[in-house]
Amino acid sequence: MIGIVLVGHSEIAPAMRCGIEHVLGPQPQLATLAVAGSMRAEAIEAELRVQLATVEEGSGALIMADMLGGTPCNVAASLCSPGRIELVCGLNLPMAIKAVKLRSVMDDPALLAATVVEAGRSYIRHLEPQSHD
Amino acid sequence: MIGIVLVGHSEIAPAMRCGIEHVLGPQPQLATLAVAGSMRAEAIEAELRVQLATVEEGSGALIMADMLGGTPCNVAASLCSPGRIELVCGLNLPMAIKAVKLRSVMDDPALLAATVVEAGRSYIRHLEPQSHD
Repeated sequence: MIGIVLVGHSEIAPAMRCGIEHVLGPQPQLATLAVAGSMRAEAIEAELRVQLATVEEGSGALIMADMLGGTPCNVAASLCSPGRIELVCGLNLPMAIKAVKLRSVMDDPALLAATVVEAGRSYIRHLEPQSHD
Repeated sequence: MIGIVLVGHSEIAPAMRCGIEHVLGPQPQLATLAVAGSMRAEAIEAELRVQLATVEEGSGALIMADMLGGTPCNVAASLCSPGRIELVCGLNLPMAIKAVKLRSVMDDPALLAATVVEAGRSYIRHLEPQSHD
């Protein structure tokens, strides 16, 4: 099964994990990395390698980062390996849940990444009055 | 200025606030609500009303919820008032930062909501190999 590492500023990644597990229950091969403001890129990279090794069991991994251009995302990009270690950014709860659900039926990390990007976008909505019923 | 309330499961909302303030510094008229799994809808609604009253100073407010169909989002939907209290869901850090930045130059909560939805979607990306440079 494809491993997943959530990474973001402050406690965003562990909080997302709580949200995922609130909906789906406890998840194996799911790790998080909370990046404090004081953490240097080298330390983030070292910790991210540890977390990747924890979740990656031969089927690759998907890293989900909180924000394009942020340090967690930039560091994660340096660890990518096409088709094996893939990276998406702009993490929200719907896309995290979609990733955890789909990885049991998908075996291509790149395809999983592309699919969760579409899901993440489609679940960002402005709930206008007619949607409130 | 338009007030903002972030609401989500577990610690997603306070963690997003930390992420925003890591980038932009301390923010006024910004509140968060962390919804524990044990919290009943009535309690969430009561607390959300309190937080809205804290941030809304006559120019309306934007509620940003973590996930469409989740209890925090459903409760928030019941408090919306078109053009005054608007709701978006699928919260991610880029859209939260965009909302905080834009509210100093926009005075229509509905337009702010529509704008941050586009931003949130556009910052969800699959970082493919050619983007890694």
